[in-house]
Amino acid sequence: MSGTTEPFDAVDVIRTKRDRGRLSDAQIDWVIDAYTRGAVAEEQMSALNMAILLNGMDRAEISRWTAAMIASGERMDFSGLSRPTADKHSTGGVGDKITLPLAPLVAVYGVAVPQLSGRGLGHTGGTLDKLESVPGWRAALTNEEMLAQLEDVGAVICQAGSGLAPADRKLYALRDVTGTVEAIPLIASSIMSKKIAEGTGSLVLDVKVGSGAFMKDLEQARELARTMVDLGTDAGVRTVALLTDMSTPLGLTAGNALEVRESVEVLAGGGPADVVELTVALAREMLGAAGVTGVDPAEALADGRAMDVWRRMIAAQGGDPDAALPVAAETETVLAPADGVVVALDALAVGVAAWRLGAGRARKEDPVQAGAGVVLHAKPGALVRAGEPLMTLHTDTPERFARAQEALDGAVVIAPDGSRPAGPLLIDRIAAG
Amino acid sequence: MSGTTEPFDAVDVIRTKRDRGRLSDAQIDWVIDAYTRGAVAEEQMSALNMAILLNGMDRAEISRWTAAMIASGERMDFSGLSRPTADKHSTGGVGDKITLPLAPLVAVYGVAVPQLSGRGLGHTGGTLDKLESVPGWRAALTNEEMLAQLEDVGAVICQAGSGLAPADRKLYALRDVTGTVEAIPLIASSIMSKKIAEGTGSLVLDVKVGSGAFMKDLEQARELARTMVDLGTDAGVRTVALLTDMSTPLGLTAGNALEVRESVEVLAGGGPADVVELTVALAREMLGAAGVTGVDPAEALADGRAMDVWRRMIAAQGGDPDAALPVAAETETVLAPADGVVVALDALAVGVAAWRLGAGRARKEDPVQAGAGVVLHAKPGALVRAGEPLMTLHTDTPERFARAQEALDGAVVIAPDGSRPAGPLLIDRIAAG
Repeated sequence: MSGTTEPFDAVDVIRTKRDRGRLSDAQIDWVIDAYTRGAVAEEQMSALNMAILLNGMDRAEISRWTAAMIASGERMDFSGLSRPTADKHSTGGVGDKITLPLAPLVAVYGVAVPQLSGRGLGHTGGTLDKLESVPGWRAALTNEEMLAQLEDVGAVICQAGSGLAPADRKLYALRDVTGTVEAIPLIASSIMSKKIAEGTGSLVLDVKVGSGAFMKDLEQARELARTMVDLGTDAGVRTVALLTDMSTPLGLTAGNALEVRESVEVLAGGGPADVVELTVALAREMLGAAGVTGVDPAEALADGRAMDVWRRMIAAQGGDPDAALPVAAETETVLAPADGVVVALDALAVGVAAWRLGAGRARKEDPVQAGAGVVLHAKPGALVRAGEPLMTLHTDTPERFARAQEALDGAVVIAPDGSRPAGPLLIDRIAAG
Repeated sequence: MSGTTEPFDAVDVIRTKRDRGRLSDAQIDWVIDAYTRGAVAEEQMSALNMAILLNGMDRAEISRWTAAMIASGERMDFSGLSRPTADKHSTGGVGDKITLPLAPLVAVYGVAVPQLSGRGLGHTGGTLDKLESVPGWRAALTNEEMLAQLEDVGAVICQAGSGLAPADRKLYALRDVTGTVEAIPLIASSIMSKKIAEGTGSLVLDVKVGSGAFMKDLEQARELARTMVDLGTDAGVRTVALLTDMSTPLGLTAGNALEVRESVEVLAGGGPADVVELTVALAREMLGAAGVTGVDPAEALADGRAMDVWRRMIAAQGGDPDAALPVAAETETVLAPADGVVVALDALAVGVAAWRLGAGRARKEDPVQAGAGVVLHAKPGALVRAGEPLMTLHTDTPERFARAQEALDGAVVIAPDGSRPAGPLLIDRIAAG
């Protein structure tokens, strides 16, 4: 790269981080911009990523790295709306359908909720895949349609445009093939660059920890949460993070239409206690961050106001909220092998089983089955008897049952009566400061 | 890469080293082979290199890595020769013309010396560049020509063929642009893969340490020497390393024809004491490693036998040992600024000055000037008076003088009479065990 008119040499930037130095603002701005336009080669960025993974970046470096990624693309602007905005991001888990009841619930209280979402890859489902099981619903909106829906309905869940932080898309594809996904500064800046570029005024992060989460380890999850809260705060977004348990699936379903059905139950005032608990906790944080206080979001689930917004939100994007949801052609039941208390039900195993049944995809271009997935009949804490159904597997392609059953081998631990499963759902809360 | 018939996934190999694990023999064999044939991408090898640089490899890993690089290409075989073989490798320094007198000197004693050499890049000169200043001399020989010359003359200095360790050539080009040159396991395996593939029975390494060397730090140089001795030993090559000082240039010349002239002085029984000392020390090690004992190589410099082999070696490759060597068109003198003792004369500064005068190249395809370089009139330890010549700069392109003088700014330290320069030329000796 030397000898051209570039202000830096990529090798010098790599060496700085390799030798545990700080990258300057100018180096960061240059390396992200030059990589985006191809003046820093893939193999150079890959070496830099590995050096960052192993040697780290400090708060100011990560903030600047994030700002440089935002500067690589367009920014959205919600400042013309008559309402404050609040956004939520989850780091991804099994059965995590929380966005579906949460967005309409928060909108009830006059806060605009723009949820730019993605599709699933691997064992965690994607919010867009779930909603696409609603007949007629479409994920792609123009910016104008999105703004109009936010003003009118108050909540929108749609596909993120490709114009936000294009450097992140290129960088993520590189990290995926070079063993550098698992770097907290790079994970945090990847997530936060898109969220900050979206232009939300406040943001609540749901950082999952446990077998079904990207972060298996509590201390790493805490570090990721702290890093993201700092990044949001430095960029002027009111940001708070909840650390939540993902050792077992959320709710009783994992799979696209199955999770929509469960979300509708929650919006109707019912549904599994853990889904309700997390929905209400996140709604309270979003409302607080948006300046709405003195309200109890549990009420709008009980009295049907959240359901009303849900129906309008679905209809605004072409969906029929009254249409029957797709159902898988075949089912198979998994039985309890013994009497006792379910003390563990592994989230990763259930996620992989649902994925193998057809709910998820292995490659970006794969289709998903709307009806496929897993329904749980017992969660940790439940008393079961040998021979009772523990879960039901759903798929349109029954040849997949065997591989799904393999994934579930050893996933459920049943202990003698009197044993108790470990840990609360809400583990910690991390705010700016 | 997954989903193909490859036995490993590059990302898993990268993760192993990233997470401080050991690479298995099968992983190493695969990753070098797959990289050479393009099934592991440049950005993947780059991430692996950075992980190796930061997390290291153990002795068995480095040996296997080296063996895999050797297996990527052809091996030479000197076992048909009637003489034992001994080779020398220097890690590169300023004024390091030792190969020129050394190869004929060792051949005097019935040991075949195959010196496959390279061209210079940056501030250290290349042996082939130096010899190409001899009118008519050619660097490129076929394997048959090389073997015939070894049998007949006993010494050959020629260009390394491109068939040896092709993985190393590809890997070095990648390391050069990704900030991963400075990894001891990768440096050691790069050097040793070529030397082992050459098929020599014994090898003496001259590992330079100091400002003009690749290794500035004694402990790093010692680690590199130890790593290379282990690698040679593990591959069945009798290997020994000398750690030698490169804080000041070797001899009184840096530059192509200038160094040939100085080498001929040494072969004529004269020349600078440090060049003679190192030549004899390395010759003694090479002879010992090849099983020749009870001889004093200083004698063959004094009595003209080494000069006889030199003349035959040069003539065998088309060179005229009696032809006048090229002389630069212009000279400029650097004067001593004060009375006193020269206590430091920086090797890097002299190397950069010679390079800027035209003796070296910035890019592989650049030509070099045969006559360009620096002649020193005083070395560390010498008494000088203000206004006396310290060195003379030689070039065909006098517009280069100013930049060469810049490089020399602060390079010479003159202290009051009675001061002494630091350190011996031969710092340490590292043998197997």
